Amino acid sequence: MGQDQSSVFDLAAVAAASNGGNNDPLLPPARFIGDPQKPSRMPYNKYASYSQQVPFDYPDRTWPGKRLQRAPRWCSVDLRDGNQALVNPMDSERKLRFWNLLVSMGFKEIEVGFPSASETDYDFIRMLIERELIPDDVTIAVLTQCREHLIRKTYECLKGAKRAVVHFYNSVSVLQREVVFKKNREEIKQLAIDAAKLCKELEGEAKGIDLYYEYSPESFTGTEPEYAVEVCNAVIGVIKPTPEHKMIVNLPATVEMTTPNVFADQVEYVSNNLDDRDSVVLSLHPHNDEGMGVAATELALLAGADRVEGCLLGNGERTGNVDLVTLGLNLLTQGIDPQIDYSNVPEIRKTVEYCNQIKISERHPYAGNFVFTAFSGSHQDAIKKGLEARQIAADRAGADLDSFVWLVPYLPIDPKDIGSTYEAIIRVNSQSGKGGMAYLLKTNHNLDLPKRLQIEFDRIVQKYADDTKKEVKDEDIWRLFKDEYLPVEETGATAAGVIVGDTHDATLEQWGRLKLLKVSVSSGEDGSDTVLKARVLDRGVTAGAEPKIREVSGMGNGPIAAFINAISNLGVEVSVLDYVEHTMSVGTDAMAASYVECQVGEDAESQIIWGVGIDSSIITSSLKAIISAVNRSER
Amino acid sequence: MGQDQSSVFDLAAVAAASNGGNNDPLLPPARFIGDPQKPSRMPYNKYASYSQQVPFDYPDRTWPGKRLQRAPRWCSVDLRDGNQALVNPMDSERKLRFWNLLVSMGFKEIEVGFPSASETDYDFIRMLIERELIPDDVTIAVLTQCREHLIRKTYECLKGAKRAVVHFYNSVSVLQREVVFKKNREEIKQLAIDAAKLCKELEGEAKGIDLYYEYSPESFTGTEPEYAVEVCNAVIGVIKPTPEHKMIVNLPATVEMTTPNVFADQVEYVSNNLDDRDSVVLSLHPHNDEGMGVAATELALLAGADRVEGCLLGNGERTGNVDLVTLGLNLLTQGIDPQIDYSNVPEIRKTVEYCNQIKISERHPYAGNFVFTAFSGSHQDAIKKGLEARQIAADRAGADLDSFVWLVPYLPIDPKDIGSTYEAIIRVNSQSGKGGMAYLLKTNHNLDLPKRLQIEFDRIVQKYADDTKKEVKDEDIWRLFKDEYLPVEETGATAAGVIVGDTHDATLEQWGRLKLLKVSVSSGEDGSDTVLKARVLDRGVTAGAEPKIREVSGMGNGPIAAFINAISNLGVEVSVLDYVEHTMSVGTDAMAASYVECQVGEDAESQIIWGVGIDSSIITSSLKAIISAVNRSER
Repeated sequence: MGQDQSSVFDLAAVAAASNGGNNDPLLPPARFIGDPQKPSRMPYNKYASYSQQVPFDYPDRTWPGKRLQRAPRWCSVDLRDGNQALVNPMDSERKLRFWNLLVSMGFKEIEVGFPSASETDYDFIRMLIERELIPDDVTIAVLTQCREHLIRKTYECLKGAKRAVVHFYNSVSVLQREVVFKKNREEIKQLAIDAAKLCKELEGEAKGIDLYYEYSPESFTGTEPEYAVEVCNAVIGVIKPTPEHKMIVNLPATVEMTTPNVFADQVEYVSNNLDDRDSVVLSLHPHNDEGMGVAATELALLAGADRVEGCLLGNGERTGNVDLVTLGLNLLTQGIDPQIDYSNVPEIRKTVEYCNQIKISERHPYAGNFVFTAFSGSHQDAIKKGLEARQIAADRAGADLDSFVWLVPYLPIDPKDIGSTYEAIIRVNSQSGKGGMAYLLKTNHNLDLPKRLQIEFDRIVQKYADDTKKEVKDEDIWRLFKDEYLPVEETGATAAGVIVGDTHDATLEQWGRLKLLKVSVSSGEDGSDTVLKARVLDRGVTAGAEPKIREVSGMGNGPIAAFINAISNLGVEVSVLDYVEHTMSVGTDAMAASYVECQVGEDAESQIIWGVGIDSSIITSSLKAIISAVNRSER
Repeated sequence: MGQDQSSVFDLAAVAAASNGGNNDPLLPPARFIGDPQKPSRMPYNKYASYSQQVPFDYPDRTWPGKRLQRAPRWCSVDLRDGNQALVNPMDSERKLRFWNLLVSMGFKEIEVGFPSASETDYDFIRMLIERELIPDDVTIAVLTQCREHLIRKTYECLKGAKRAVVHFYNSVSVLQREVVFKKNREEIKQLAIDAAKLCKELEGEAKGIDLYYEYSPESFTGTEPEYAVEVCNAVIGVIKPTPEHKMIVNLPATVEMTTPNVFADQVEYVSNNLDDRDSVVLSLHPHNDEGMGVAATELALLAGADRVEGCLLGNGERTGNVDLVTLGLNLLTQGIDPQIDYSNVPEIRKTVEYCNQIKISERHPYAGNFVFTAFSGSHQDAIKKGLEARQIAADRAGADLDSFVWLVPYLPIDPKDIGSTYEAIIRVNSQSGKGGMAYLLKTNHNLDLPKRLQIEFDRIVQKYADDTKKEVKDEDIWRLFKDEYLPVEETGATAAGVIVGDTHDATLEQWGRLKLLKVSVSSGEDGSDTVLKARVLDRGVTAGAEPKIREVSGMGNGPIAAFINAISNLGVEVSVLDYVEHTMSVGTDAMAASYVECQVGEDAESQIIWGVGIDSSIITSSLKAIISAVNRSER
């Protein structure tokens, strides 16, 4: 056994001595905004910085100015690295379901197990081979440590496969060399070389298999990059890949140890210093300990990596492997084909959660329940306006909306493109403004409220939200809206329809003073001499008064003016300040919605108030809207 | 209303036309490893790349070569941005609990709400002020849009506060200017200027408040950086901050739109081009739409930002705000004091989950249930060796273990430092090797198995794991170990203790052929003439045989040799190949564990097999170990 003379634990003194200087108050002089932050009781001087552990700089870097251009080669390690990190590893039914999902999504490389370490993995791989479940264009990879009996068993497992990647690894980090393997750099490198030689020897036993190799200097992030290159080049020297028959060199961020700019520097350095670079596929295998696995991957792709290993939705040891769904869909938002089918993320999520028996977070990028949801009023308003503007722009361009450029505030991706609906986008709570409510009424009830009416109704929604301290669901908004502006369920109600004990009609009765029963309108060749006759149920202004049916008539320069004139006979003084009407759908049987802003009453006692009416007739809907305003003013 | 002549939707043509070129097969020539990936059916050409949306490059960047040096100023926006993104926003009890958590952790800036938009927020802030719940060294911030009535209400809400930040914002992005506000660049800038002027005017009404300002060019990531600087500088020109009385300029990544290198470039550009930079605190407000919020923050800190707004555990609109827990603990792992107390992450998590009513993921960095868990055998083995090596190094240095440098494979942080235990570190499933099992036996049962015994017992654990397809819990391992090596619960069992129907003793009976009842050993001045007499219960080799109590004696150069000699009288041939013994605890009443590797039987029929014995006497424990091996060989 060889041992390097120095020990990693010499860093104890370095850490304890040097870090204190980094912890001055933030911005000298002391006055920031308010008082400075105070030192915490966290034991920071028991940690050595990454620069102290692995000193490295690469001023020749070119990646910071680059942008992603195309999809890397993807390899799913769900059935190996993901599976080994589960409380209950997948049984063969779950493994097969996951395999089928991966194949259907378009993965061409799938690491299927560590057959020399697990009977379950071994049996599963044999099943894939023997039942001929591996499509011709899919390559399986199997993992093994650099140990003879494990490598031999790995080859044994592959018998009968058409094509396979034998993925061998050994840990090369400073820390593991000292505390786990107790070997020096040369000895650790020799382990990798010996494994590569054994693999070449065993090729004779793998006749008929189109065989490739992958080598991982495991714990790469804890390794001097120069030494990692030295080991990889030694392996390349044994395997002797060619541009026509490449090998994979895979750099595992086994533990994410620092900011991703450093990882990108290291990858660019390795990429520039590997032997036979055009015979090598440079691969990444990032983990997520510091929550930056996705970023580390993307920056390392800018730095020259060709291939990424990861798991769907970020399963894997500890904080997980890098999430292939997020990586793929990040590419999509940049106009780049991920070359994997993510068109049904809810289904992917369902299968992954079933197989892994782990739920993902509500805020998981692209896949969580809340990631398309805007609760904030200003966000809701902007989304609503953005969707409208996009619709208009698509119409103007004569383009199909579904394929028209996606530019909507707060939504980096079209939910429809990944199998979600717009339903979850807008949800209303006490923090929301009028935008969300208006969006829901428009989307789900085809009501496009004028802005001042939005403000008026929003007060009612806000009060409800503040009172209940809960999400205001669409049905709540609709109920509040109907209670406030619309007589509940008019159909079937009659003039005399006051049945004691029937809550439905009781509600109807309580809803307001007036109810329109019948109307006839006649006018000449222009509207100015419109005559309107209406039959109105008048419940009176005092409680308990006997409802009366009144026939009224009036004249005006249109039905609204005539109706206002007519109901003045009931002692109701109304003037219309604003009026908006729109159809609620296409076709001759469409309903119309009318909104009127009225001044009801006279002088000091008058109120400015909105009313809403819905009817198949635009006349009736507008008259109902006026009645709605009158009834509200009397409540 | 002014309108820029061009429209963002002109990008439709750009996106459709230019992206196709980015989607060639990965590595020409076509032969990679196996078949190339195929184009997917994802509609990539409806997305414009970020470079197309916001063209920007900053070759003068210096951040890629920098490293984090100290904690930024932290501002929690849990009570505002976090709260507004909840299905059920916090009631006042939850808000107060969250507030108390933040104050106790050491946050000196806390954004407490959007009082002009929510009555609940308004009332909560009034309560904080009126009940004097704000410590003198904590500064509250309140958010408002740049609209007069909202700003006025904001000031009204602050009456009586000792110190506060008025945080005003307007959206300045290309997209929102066009589709939401329908205003041009000058008009949008004027909104910000007018708001700043109004704030200055209203200072007269805020007498007694030590008042600061924060301005956010909202949707900064969708904005031309040059224009964002222009707007910020216009605001700075109105507010006129000084180095002694700074203002905050806050850059919201309202939507995360691309890789964090681009964001860092933008932040460095802004930092270098703001007026009166030494009078400005440059702040970040990152979201996480592409899963890179933590990385974007850290790189932007390298790029010159001073302050970070975020939420505990990454709550917030859609995919959440940047996670302050991850950011803080990432600093800790670099030997930097986060200046926030994260020493009890489980308690923080509990409170956050209670207040937000959202569960975090099992794999959430630092806080998820699985993030310190290693299931992989090689990881478990390395962790075990790493913990041992660290212990040895600390002992050698005469250092306290708890504060000694933390360098353990696969564990970037000492779980103890953030309130977790080591218990969750090692869990065993069918993917684990012997390391995990050995660690659990050592940690929880003080048994330090010799390596060849680990290999032997691991087969039993593996078979159990493969059969059950479930996690093998510590109690399972212990039960398997006892069933295999130790007679179950010897205490209370007697020689004749075979009671039909008593499963306990039935197990005991079935456990093996021999049971040691009594032993006496005498030896002279050295061990070579040791005489041993033993009373042994012999249940015989054939099923149903009558148990007999046998008295045997033997001689040897020590008790083990003498015992082997003695039991040869029972027809049992044993030779010892390896022998290890250790005490299981400190003190005179400690138990000893003995492990013997024996060859049992003769010639072709012999087996090499381990036995284990535990007893307070090192003699008895070693003899029990031999009996354990004999009994196992007969089973």
